[in-house]
Amino acid sequence: MRREYDIDLLIRKFKEKDKIALARLISIIENHPEKASDIFKNFNHIKHDSYIIGITGSPGVGKSTLTGAIAKRLLKEGKSIGVISVDPTSPFSGGAFLGDRVRMTEVSLDPNIFIRSLASRGYRGGISRAVLDITLLYEAFGMDFIIIETVGVGQSEFEIYNLAYTIIVVMVPGYGDAIQMQKAGIIEIGDIYDVNKKDLGGADIAAHIDMMLDDSTFQGGWRPPIVQTNSITGDGVDELIENIWDHKEHIELSDLLSEKKKIRFAYKIKELLYYKIDIVLESLINQDELNHITTKALENKFQIYDLVHDLFSDVKFERKSKS
Amino acid sequence: MRREYDIDLLIRKFKEKDKIALARLISIIENHPEKASDIFKNFNHIKHDSYIIGITGSPGVGKSTLTGAIAKRLLKEGKSIGVISVDPTSPFSGGAFLGDRVRMTEVSLDPNIFIRSLASRGYRGGISRAVLDITLLYEAFGMDFIIIETVGVGQSEFEIYNLAYTIIVVMVPGYGDAIQMQKAGIIEIGDIYDVNKKDLGGADIAAHIDMMLDDSTFQGGWRPPIVQTNSITGDGVDELIENIWDHKEHIELSDLLSEKKKIRFAYKIKELLYYKIDIVLESLINQDELNHITTKALENKFQIYDLVHDLFSDVKFERKSKS
Repeated sequence: MRREYDIDLLIRKFKEKDKIALARLISIIENHPEKASDIFKNFNHIKHDSYIIGITGSPGVGKSTLTGAIAKRLLKEGKSIGVISVDPTSPFSGGAFLGDRVRMTEVSLDPNIFIRSLASRGYRGGISRAVLDITLLYEAFGMDFIIIETVGVGQSEFEIYNLAYTIIVVMVPGYGDAIQMQKAGIIEIGDIYDVNKKDLGGADIAAHIDMMLDDSTFQGGWRPPIVQTNSITGDGVDELIENIWDHKEHIELSDLLSEKKKIRFAYKIKELLYYKIDIVLESLINQDELNHITTKALENKFQIYDLVHDLFSDVKFERKSKS
Repeated sequence: MRREYDIDLLIRKFKEKDKIALARLISIIENHPEKASDIFKNFNHIKHDSYIIGITGSPGVGKSTLTGAIAKRLLKEGKSIGVISVDPTSPFSGGAFLGDRVRMTEVSLDPNIFIRSLASRGYRGGISRAVLDITLLYEAFGMDFIIIETVGVGQSEFEIYNLAYTIIVVMVPGYGDAIQMQKAGIIEIGDIYDVNKKDLGGADIAAHIDMMLDDSTFQGGWRPPIVQTNSITGDGVDELIENIWDHKEHIELSDLLSEKKKIRFAYKIKELLYYKIDIVLESLINQDELNHITTKALENKFQIYDLVHDLFSDVKFERKSKS
């Protein structure tokens, strides 16, 4: 009863744009995903959409400083912003250098921005689920923009291209980053390429990406622009933001935006199905049994498939036919 | 019938150390995981263990060249090696620069080495499962060593520390890599730290890691050594290999190795359970239904939890009580 009361109060505060209530609801959904449904049903009447920007790149390329620089510009234009950082080396999550963290703190004091970092390694599907839920909470809160910052090198559990509408791939000069990413096909996910730390050069890399893009075909006729920035001084950030507006307009006019939204929700639905199944699995098979077959697998590793098969053989799944 | 015959023939060839049969069996298990059980049951009498080395680090730090350099030394000592590369930017998978690829090709021509790369992004759990199965196939093949090369920045779907016995974390000078990783707690997974590209410096980074390690507590009394290498010239690689032997001896004597093996199989068992459930899920809920609720979620995103709940509500899970 007490808990119910708390959530009702939080929802009321949340609707009054209370950032502490937002923070608490995020924590509740993260730690008690079973409560998400009860929380979200309070927002059924809200029709607000946020525009979701993804910023991805290797650790150390300056994604967080860039996020800070973009956020600063958007705040100046009167926009509200929700940031989600899923980079464990981000200054938002206590990583990186003191100077970065000071710059971030300066931005984060603005009442129109809220920053949440997910630094820890999640269990299976954990980070994805949390990120998706936080975007929904930001939308219910009425954020104009959501910026998701993520380490992206092709294998991350959380795949940003299922979630963001405009993706900025950030690189740095002199690291071979661009060429490495291009060869691996990772470069294909960018809607905008940013060569950051332009004080260290990077014109050659920008030219190289440009050449690579000559050989590509572009989704819906958008040729990704290449920008050079210095996220610390702010040099080039205006141009980057201009390019975000251009891309936003492009996907809105070409109806690609609704396609991207569809992908986002389909991904969320799949996550939720997996989550439900995880719960069922835990209730059906206990730790002792798992320990037992692990010991047996240690004795003869090649029978591992059969051991799991036997364990699973008396689990029955059924679906009542729809009435 | 024909297919059965093919697999029997492949198994026979495999047992005669035919690398083409090894390659085909890997492909079969990758593409038809339901056949894995039939394949592995042929190895029930094999007791051979391989020693598994993990090499991880950001893209571009030279993991593949280092893998090549280590492999070259091991081959010279008469050892056989199976390599698995899960770095999409690896020269093994066609990424990186021509020079790297030429060096790798030189190594890969040796009859005692087999290299498999998993370049593409897998679906949920896909890459993990494939890597685990390939390690089993390498063990059945009789490989002395398995080297797994992976991009590791804390969020990768495939977590190398569940699988490798000795983990080498590779960094480069001048990139802030070490500090970034340390702050994020990623540095804790290394059994050995290698600052590669020593021709570009790196003594300061090595000293910094050393200082950080002063503050750490070490699993089983092993203090991770820090090595500097130039994987292209081979400078420092002997020292790195000495450290691998030291760590191997350490975990064998302290019984940490059997603990690590237990983790490896427990992880595999969990993967297999998830895989079984994926199949069940696909058979129970069809694409049309998923499309339908995706459309409904587009209309009102905050009811997404309820939509999935309804979809799942007539799925029944049961476990027959053990007789």
